[in-house]
Amino acid sequence: MTVYSAPLEDMRFALRDIVGFDRIAALPGFSGSDDEIMEHVLEEAGKLARDVLAPLNPVGDREQAKLENGVVRPAPGYSEAYGQFWQGGWNAMPFEEELGGQNLPMTLTTAVWEMWNASNLAFALCPLLTQAGIEALSKHASEEQKAKYLPKLVSGEWTGTMNLTEPQSGTDLGAIRTRSERHGDHYRLKGQKIFITWGDHDMTENIVHMVLARSPDGPPGSKGLSLFIVPKYLVNDDGSLGARNDVRPVSLEHKLGIHASPTCVMSYGDNEGAVAYLVGEENRGIEYMFVMMNNARLGVGLQGLAIADRAYQQAAAFARERVQSRPVQGADGPVPIIHHPDVRRMLLGMKSQVEGMRALCYYTAAEIDRANRESDPDAAAKAQRRVDLLIPVVKSWCTDTALAVTSCNIQVHGGMGFIEETGAAQHYRDARITTIYEGTNGVQAMDLIGRKVARDGGEAARELFADIRADLEPLRDSDELAARALVKHLDSALAAAEDGVSWLVATFPKDAATAASAGVPFQNLMGLLCAGWLLARGVAAGAAQKPNANGDAGFLDAKLTTARFFADYHLSQAPSLVTQMTEAGDAVMAMALDRF
Amino acid sequence: MTVYSAPLEDMRFALRDIVGFDRIAALPGFSGSDDEIMEHVLEEAGKLARDVLAPLNPVGDREQAKLENGVVRPAPGYSEAYGQFWQGGWNAMPFEEELGGQNLPMTLTTAVWEMWNASNLAFALCPLLTQAGIEALSKHASEEQKAKYLPKLVSGEWTGTMNLTEPQSGTDLGAIRTRSERHGDHYRLKGQKIFITWGDHDMTENIVHMVLARSPDGPPGSKGLSLFIVPKYLVNDDGSLGARNDVRPVSLEHKLGIHASPTCVMSYGDNEGAVAYLVGEENRGIEYMFVMMNNARLGVGLQGLAIADRAYQQAAAFARERVQSRPVQGADGPVPIIHHPDVRRMLLGMKSQVEGMRALCYYTAAEIDRANRESDPDAAAKAQRRVDLLIPVVKSWCTDTALAVTSCNIQVHGGMGFIEETGAAQHYRDARITTIYEGTNGVQAMDLIGRKVARDGGEAARELFADIRADLEPLRDSDELAARALVKHLDSALAAAEDGVSWLVATFPKDAATAASAGVPFQNLMGLLCAGWLLARGVAAGAAQKPNANGDAGFLDAKLTTARFFADYHLSQAPSLVTQMTEAGDAVMAMALDRF
Repeated sequence: MTVYSAPLEDMRFALRDIVGFDRIAALPGFSGSDDEIMEHVLEEAGKLARDVLAPLNPVGDREQAKLENGVVRPAPGYSEAYGQFWQGGWNAMPFEEELGGQNLPMTLTTAVWEMWNASNLAFALCPLLTQAGIEALSKHASEEQKAKYLPKLVSGEWTGTMNLTEPQSGTDLGAIRTRSERHGDHYRLKGQKIFITWGDHDMTENIVHMVLARSPDGPPGSKGLSLFIVPKYLVNDDGSLGARNDVRPVSLEHKLGIHASPTCVMSYGDNEGAVAYLVGEENRGIEYMFVMMNNARLGVGLQGLAIADRAYQQAAAFARERVQSRPVQGADGPVPIIHHPDVRRMLLGMKSQVEGMRALCYYTAAEIDRANRESDPDAAAKAQRRVDLLIPVVKSWCTDTALAVTSCNIQVHGGMGFIEETGAAQHYRDARITTIYEGTNGVQAMDLIGRKVARDGGEAARELFADIRADLEPLRDSDELAARALVKHLDSALAAAEDGVSWLVATFPKDAATAASAGVPFQNLMGLLCAGWLLARGVAAGAAQKPNANGDAGFLDAKLTTARFFADYHLSQAPSLVTQMTEAGDAVMAMALDRF
Repeated sequence: MTVYSAPLEDMRFALRDIVGFDRIAALPGFSGSDDEIMEHVLEEAGKLARDVLAPLNPVGDREQAKLENGVVRPAPGYSEAYGQFWQGGWNAMPFEEELGGQNLPMTLTTAVWEMWNASNLAFALCPLLTQAGIEALSKHASEEQKAKYLPKLVSGEWTGTMNLTEPQSGTDLGAIRTRSERHGDHYRLKGQKIFITWGDHDMTENIVHMVLARSPDGPPGSKGLSLFIVPKYLVNDDGSLGARNDVRPVSLEHKLGIHASPTCVMSYGDNEGAVAYLVGEENRGIEYMFVMMNNARLGVGLQGLAIADRAYQQAAAFARERVQSRPVQGADGPVPIIHHPDVRRMLLGMKSQVEGMRALCYYTAAEIDRANRESDPDAAAKAQRRVDLLIPVVKSWCTDTALAVTSCNIQVHGGMGFIEETGAAQHYRDARITTIYEGTNGVQAMDLIGRKVARDGGEAARELFADIRADLEPLRDSDELAARALVKHLDSALAAAEDGVSWLVATFPKDAATAASAGVPFQNLMGLLCAGWLLARGVAAGAAQKPNANGDAGFLDAKLTTARFFADYHLSQAPSLVTQMTEAGDAVMAMALDRF
């Protein structure tokens, strides 16, 4: 019941025919990332995901990570799996060769990370946090710091953590109280951090904590924060490990899901103060954190896609096996429930959402590659604008959709879905954190409407709309049902999105509160629009390939039918979201606070 | 964090100003159910819910019911609470005086049951199942059986269970295998039942199981099923308890939620066969079960309302307390998050859905009272048509909405929502069963479009639409913003629902599969429409009362603003559901089954 099989055919279609992987792989500076390598990487990653990580997923849910004598013990099998993971070179995929990385495109890394997240979300969080630490250090650390920490973080021999949250400081990082003092060439930290993912464990010899804390004499609020390196064990100049640092996990949270991922309360400086090394300059901690956010938020959106696909796979497998009742269209006797139209509606709803999410995640990763690698500065800048615009949409739409899809998986299972042993409930529980961490989806919406739309007067959004329109043109003459459905509903969704942008640009400067109340509906609208657009690219490619498809005709037909359903069922709901945006905010702000 | 306070003011408004409780209380045959009694009943029930049942809710979640030495032990405190419940007369509320009941309207019982479900869903399931057993026995048992079992079931001194499901037989009751043999004046049963709610416990001296089993020589399928009484302890003619019957709980399910409610695998006839007494005639078991379904399905819809209200209360309380960040509209410093527009949008979204669900549940209960009590047979028949039409809508729309509201409660809590101790996660987990049991929401949709719409050519639906239009007329001239919003969006939703009905009536006879794939979207459309309609009734009443409201003006303003938001935000989404109905079914049926 907890099987996961990486959908290689679907992934390849998204990479080749929606994102255009060949163009990404040909960007300057990638090493050997051709089609053959792509095939090989996907297949090998798929094996590790299926054979090692996926079977551990229910084990970790049941057994959980535990805090024993001041050390976090991962659930059974996790240490061994982590060893296989980093020794197989998987941690190093996206990093530059001079750091010990493999210099592969973010686009390909994203497809592989879909597998880690789908097979075992709680496990994948550990290397995800390491990646964030690597990114911060590569961009802002001194050469000496890089030499000391990066090779073992890139290889995965050590893991990393991000320490931001405190009890009074979640979204509002300016409220952080953890303080630092200068001690010669280093600092000493004292304070408590909460919600620290994989904050401790014994899977590796060392852990490198990245900690946001108040500068010794910085201004109050977020402008007085600095970013520090705090290794669990101090690292000597020859690379050997020295003394245990004054940082420890003091308790683990009892969570709704991702039980195998230890969420630690971390105490810094119970004794003499945790030895800490400043990254970059004092008081620039927030700025350094923000630089990491695009990748981290794409990473969480990808979690939404991944767990939704696993839930979809489980629902489809169950629906093929479970025999119950005659279908309304008639049959001799009871049939597998996949024959019942309402079950098929649910399954196609899930499948089409998964394919829409996959297209959106891979596309955004490809734009990150282009922003980093395009030799034409205009093309790179345009890609960066696209990334900045889409990141909150990817993060929020994919995670909101994951809640719907994992819930639908339970529904397809009927009563069995509510029984924990079935495994459907775990995905539903695990997915629930994704709309919250790395900035709640409401925070994403504020980022989207404020920084990404209102600030440039809607320019980046309209640039996107123009690209969508251009991609639609070749489909307008198509006889394919999928093309007709997509053209029809994309035209409506585009018009709605343009109305939404105009309204936001006009409203935000004069009434930010009303505009803010419209952020989430606008974000949902953008998610539907972009997913529909990218599926339309797939329809164009699929329709062109069909005449010569031979054995793949069934696959391409399914792609077209899935995209058609996305248009008719999901995308068709986009225009009415503008009503939520433009009409409902008045009541939101009129409601007396003491009457809630 | 797990406080529950019955929203008496909102309940009274729904009863008096939306449903017209005075007219229901005046129906022939109710004893003393005037306004004063209503006030008294609500207040006393509210105390039991708040002081006894609500505090046990997290205890039951944590400690769970346990199977020890063949007996189910409820979580700590549940036995004592159940004693208070039945000894306080709460179990007997809706039943006739000659059975020991209090003869109060279903409308009032429904309001009180909202409290039991909100304060402790897992607890409330026990008396809910007793009620179903009472209903079956009152309608179909012999006088001798009634005399033996009903008084103690009505008082609650004993509890009842419903035994339908078997591993191969969920939705498809015709697949039941539990078999019966005649033994003189009784029968002996052998077989296994699963998912039996409160199938065993030691809170009462006896349990009366209602069991659906194959008749000794009946036809195959659902027409060969009979309904049996199987007491846990045989009952002597003098009412004393005799031998232990051959029925026992063999295991408990490990579930996502409602942990305090033991979900038993029940074994009948491991030894000589469980002594069983036939209810009514052989082979009419299914027919007897269906008679009970309207009340049971209303009861589950009510669970959706109830748990959503509890989640809403928790979210609002947290949002008032949690301080984080400056709001976009400006402030001197960080504020309670209830000031942030997106949080207010979430809270008003939840509150307006709760009020819509409450109006719909209470209205449907009132129609049940009218169907049972109206002296004019035409009025009674019309009420019964309305009940039959709305029952699947109430069950499914309220439970689907409960999933959304309990999820939103977690979202309002941010990271704290994912921590089990906060208690938000429990509501999310508990609510997840409500869209499944008592007929999945997909099964409700089949009932709605097949039996309730297509069968009568849409007549009952159009009768409803005419009533909605009539209620809208007086609002058309109103200057109230809420009235204007409701008129606008109800007009659109009505037009959409009419289109939907016409399409269903035309499509179902010639292409049942495509029609069936449209059942759930149509059901959602009907839920939004009916909730919006009933909130419009409240707006008419509230607007009329405002000039003389004195101290209640703030309450009425909040009612109007909440209804306005429901129209602009939720109801405005109804028309596009027709697109899902009419356009998406083609792809559902076109998708090759082996490509899911």
